[in-house]
Amino acid sequence: MFRTHTCGELRINNINSEVILAGWVQTVRKFGAITFVDLRDRYGITQLLFGEELNQQLDANPLGREFVLQAAGTVHERSNKNPNITTGDIEISVRSFKILNRSATPPFTIQDDTDGGDDLRMKYRFLDLRRNAVKKNIELRHAVNRATRNYLHQQGFMDIETPFLIKSTPEGARDFVVPSRMNPGQFYALPQSPQTFKQHLMVSGYDRYYQIVKCFRDEDLRADRQPEFTQIDCEMAFVEQEDILNMFEGMVKSIFKEVKGIDYSEKVERMTWEDAMWTYGNDKPDIRFEMKLANLKFPAHTFPNKIEMLQSSPLGTGGLNSGFGVFDNAETVIAFAVPGCSEYSRKQTDELTEWVKRPQIGMGGLGFIKWNKDGSYKSSMDKFFNEEKLKAIAVACSASAGDLILILAGPEERTRKAVSELRMEMAGRLGLRKSEEFKLLWVLDFPLFEYDAGENRWVARHHPFTSPKPSDIETMINNDPVIDNAAEYLKHPYANIKANAYDMVLNGNEIGGGSIRIYQRELQEKMFAALGMSKEESLHKFSFLLGAFEYGAPPHGGIAFGFDRLCAILGGSESIRDFIAFPKNNAGRDVMLDAPATIDEKQLNELQIKSIAKKE
Amino acid sequence: MFRTHTCGELRINNINSEVILAGWVQTVRKFGAITFVDLRDRYGITQLLFGEELNQQLDANPLGREFVLQAAGTVHERSNKNPNITTGDIEISVRSFKILNRSATPPFTIQDDTDGGDDLRMKYRFLDLRRNAVKKNIELRHAVNRATRNYLHQQGFMDIETPFLIKSTPEGARDFVVPSRMNPGQFYALPQSPQTFKQHLMVSGYDRYYQIVKCFRDEDLRADRQPEFTQIDCEMAFVEQEDILNMFEGMVKSIFKEVKGIDYSEKVERMTWEDAMWTYGNDKPDIRFEMKLANLKFPAHTFPNKIEMLQSSPLGTGGLNSGFGVFDNAETVIAFAVPGCSEYSRKQTDELTEWVKRPQIGMGGLGFIKWNKDGSYKSSMDKFFNEEKLKAIAVACSASAGDLILILAGPEERTRKAVSELRMEMAGRLGLRKSEEFKLLWVLDFPLFEYDAGENRWVARHHPFTSPKPSDIETMINNDPVIDNAAEYLKHPYANIKANAYDMVLNGNEIGGGSIRIYQRELQEKMFAALGMSKEESLHKFSFLLGAFEYGAPPHGGIAFGFDRLCAILGGSESIRDFIAFPKNNAGRDVMLDAPATIDEKQLNELQIKSIAKKE
Repeated sequence: MFRTHTCGELRINNINSEVILAGWVQTVRKFGAITFVDLRDRYGITQLLFGEELNQQLDANPLGREFVLQAAGTVHERSNKNPNITTGDIEISVRSFKILNRSATPPFTIQDDTDGGDDLRMKYRFLDLRRNAVKKNIELRHAVNRATRNYLHQQGFMDIETPFLIKSTPEGARDFVVPSRMNPGQFYALPQSPQTFKQHLMVSGYDRYYQIVKCFRDEDLRADRQPEFTQIDCEMAFVEQEDILNMFEGMVKSIFKEVKGIDYSEKVERMTWEDAMWTYGNDKPDIRFEMKLANLKFPAHTFPNKIEMLQSSPLGTGGLNSGFGVFDNAETVIAFAVPGCSEYSRKQTDELTEWVKRPQIGMGGLGFIKWNKDGSYKSSMDKFFNEEKLKAIAVACSASAGDLILILAGPEERTRKAVSELRMEMAGRLGLRKSEEFKLLWVLDFPLFEYDAGENRWVARHHPFTSPKPSDIETMINNDPVIDNAAEYLKHPYANIKANAYDMVLNGNEIGGGSIRIYQRELQEKMFAALGMSKEESLHKFSFLLGAFEYGAPPHGGIAFGFDRLCAILGGSESIRDFIAFPKNNAGRDVMLDAPATIDEKQLNELQIKSIAKKE
Repeated sequence: MFRTHTCGELRINNINSEVILAGWVQTVRKFGAITFVDLRDRYGITQLLFGEELNQQLDANPLGREFVLQAAGTVHERSNKNPNITTGDIEISVRSFKILNRSATPPFTIQDDTDGGDDLRMKYRFLDLRRNAVKKNIELRHAVNRATRNYLHQQGFMDIETPFLIKSTPEGARDFVVPSRMNPGQFYALPQSPQTFKQHLMVSGYDRYYQIVKCFRDEDLRADRQPEFTQIDCEMAFVEQEDILNMFEGMVKSIFKEVKGIDYSEKVERMTWEDAMWTYGNDKPDIRFEMKLANLKFPAHTFPNKIEMLQSSPLGTGGLNSGFGVFDNAETVIAFAVPGCSEYSRKQTDELTEWVKRPQIGMGGLGFIKWNKDGSYKSSMDKFFNEEKLKAIAVACSASAGDLILILAGPEERTRKAVSELRMEMAGRLGLRKSEEFKLLWVLDFPLFEYDAGENRWVARHHPFTSPKPSDIETMINNDPVIDNAAEYLKHPYANIKANAYDMVLNGNEIGGGSIRIYQRELQEKMFAALGMSKEESLHKFSFLLGAFEYGAPPHGGIAFGFDRLCAILGGSESIRDFIAFPKNNAGRDVMLDAPATIDEKQLNELQIKSIAKKE
């Protein structure tokens, strides 16, 4: 052993102990004949004092930043204590030392506020990982991993490994494939998730399964996506939706408790998908703050149950017809109140208008109403709306005097997306997105299908194994999935089928999602047909699953959590890359390894494949 | 929830409770107007009693084997108790039931002694997994996983995930590769182990790392090898060999305790590689039993330190020159005593002779000496050896009267391998390989290099990151690795360099292996050169590692355990496949999924690769 203690361990009660430490040189400070060295390891920093006798040796072998040093000496009380570090009461009077390894000057400083840019830190990730700011993320990830396993183990879940070299069944995302040398012309695929395996395990009777497991998707990488990512993957048999919701809100609460010391004792809120879209404009609302939406105008088909409510409001659908073309011609008009911002200056509202006009948001403009503290109104649409109308809008937004009401108008999907982002932006500016406040939400009752206009067919919103609500099974079985009239696809009975599916949302991020599964062969075949798969295709891709359903498949369901994302949010960050030890960049490259890379011709020949990429 | 209790839960103190169970129909037995059903789930079997009233319903909806059934009723004490199952004191008087899913007749019986052959069981693995014989293996695997994590967590190890899409650096085994769509013409590789990443983590200061992780090797599959397999992968910084040995024998003992209830309190035995080869003929000896080898004749170079000992024995190297050509002309002659077998019949010794002549063993014949209980000798070589010589051989084998001494002669490597296998075979016949007896062993001081005659160069016996013994570093640095005279490679100084490496052996199986690593750039470069790698090649493949060594790499070392194998041995089996939920067959195929398989032309085009395999 190269050390008797770590650099985070020694305290005042160790005084006069003889110790040996080993670690990295953080700083070297010379004061005349003596030298102070801060020695760092995973556990902390300890101050070393080199007295006059050793200084000659130090002069002959000068220490540099990040040198690996072993030092033996005596623990002494410091005259000048440092209350900021746990070892701040003591220092080591060094008797002898040994340089275990030298270091070139690091390309950036190993400090919380490093001078290294993103690219440099990725290339030298092994140095970046030394920084405390990164280390605490990796430690947090380990703690979340541990807490997850502890909870699931206590609940009787079994960790069962599923294979990585499986069969390509592209459905939605693209598979990474692996050429098989022993079966020339054939390929394995890397799993996008262990979905069908965990369903097989339910058929096999392992009624509580989990895995913390790598999954792979060959997608064009958006910011903060990784080609390989980690899931907490779970499945249970003999359960209904309510059982899953209770089990896994228990899991997340247990993680809060073990990792963050937070008692999340209240019941997790639940909201239907329709209500989430209606009230927040998206299906993963951040409910740490209010700012609920007022849907002033929207297409009749969107929320058939809400139309009546809208018509009975003082605004009415017709009420907006005030000669203001932007609203009158828009498919959708949505408003919300930003609390306490009625005194925003012209410059500030102009800046917000520019914000929504950026290409990422893509809106034509921004309407606003200031409901001043004195009760008066001032709006960008004064020409078209009298005070009564302005007030009606304000009331629809549940605003108070002193609030600023923001209004967006445009095509439905883009407007909802924009208003959702604007709401988050305003909450950010008001400091309402507190990284240490956590609000969970279950979103329920998603539509089972989405419409693919390009192919005029249904696609599975979640995945093809999700069961419809029990009350919708008849509708699904008894209707032909073919859409005769593309323009009226919303009138097809499939448009209203709800999925037995659920998402868990944390602070505006989807952290987990799952569903009760289909377990009847007939219904599963109907689902494949609904997705436009021929009988032959569904058998080629999924005969093993359909086969399994013939031998006593139990009712079952499950959920998968995005482990990287969960860790990032718990760590108060929105970037998953900071919580992965060796992440890839946005081009899917590991810049530290310089991978992917070309391989030997011999390897390609053995695999009997040929690259037909154009050489640059 | 579909049930109030599991099928393994109800006891005599639950009598008169109203319960709901759900599970699979194991058996249906009709006795006149009543029917007994054994209902099975992961937790056990409970007997259901269907009375007269329900029998009509049963007649209308007959239950079959493996039907999924939900039954509600009252817990009653059984008149005819079954002491073999934990629920044997009770049964459920069924009040109502529901068939949750039907089952076709399974292709084999779901019983410990199934009638299904290997291929059928692999194809229907989801049914095979229902059998208790397989389920207990999967449960044991989960328990080993849990015990491993608990121990390593207590010891301050962090579970840190390393990437799966890495760079191909073939060195020894073949990589599986993954074409990159976003980087046409380039490939990722799947890791054969996280070796370089865990070394980077040490450089980053995470001084205790572990992972239970999938690894991949594209090798021609021998029996009981899998293209994907699981490792317990560990690394520590600031340690020497002794620290690693103590830490990980602690881990295995902790697994014994938690999983098997075994207190393995004695210190784990240690043996040098030379002693293992000398005494047992191989480097993973089974020390549950003695039967040590007597090396009667061997090439002088094999164990230079043993020559003297041999020459001073009553046999002497020359002593064998008795005109018996088989021995006189052999490179190697090895004997061992099988206790208590001196009364083996001619038929039995003939059968053993046939056994060693099989192509898998490949020996020309078998010599034997019977040391009879009356003290007399009878041997197959009576013509050439007088009693004094026979006795000397027996004494060299530490034999006693009543033992049978077996002798093999031939080329060194083949003879050692054969004698090792014969020793295991005889131990098996004598019942000395008890699956519930566990004997651990550390094998130490391996040679660092092996000689590759084909390329007339050195190859790393463990891997290129293993450090030589500290005392051998000078020899390695100061000598040119080039072998001028192939015939005399043993005289090259590199031939005697010992590795700072260790294997853990359990009951004759290598379950783990590791080493103290090189952490100095100069020594690592020397190693790459010794393996015949040019400077360019080593930089192309390993520049990230060599670079990391420039920025303060600490002394470090680690170990990896074969998780599949460890589980198999703890489960009393030698087949790892029985301990993997979804294994592949010997051709690397998953016969349940029918993978690998052809993929769409569209996928190949996107990847810009082409299969050049000949279509059959």
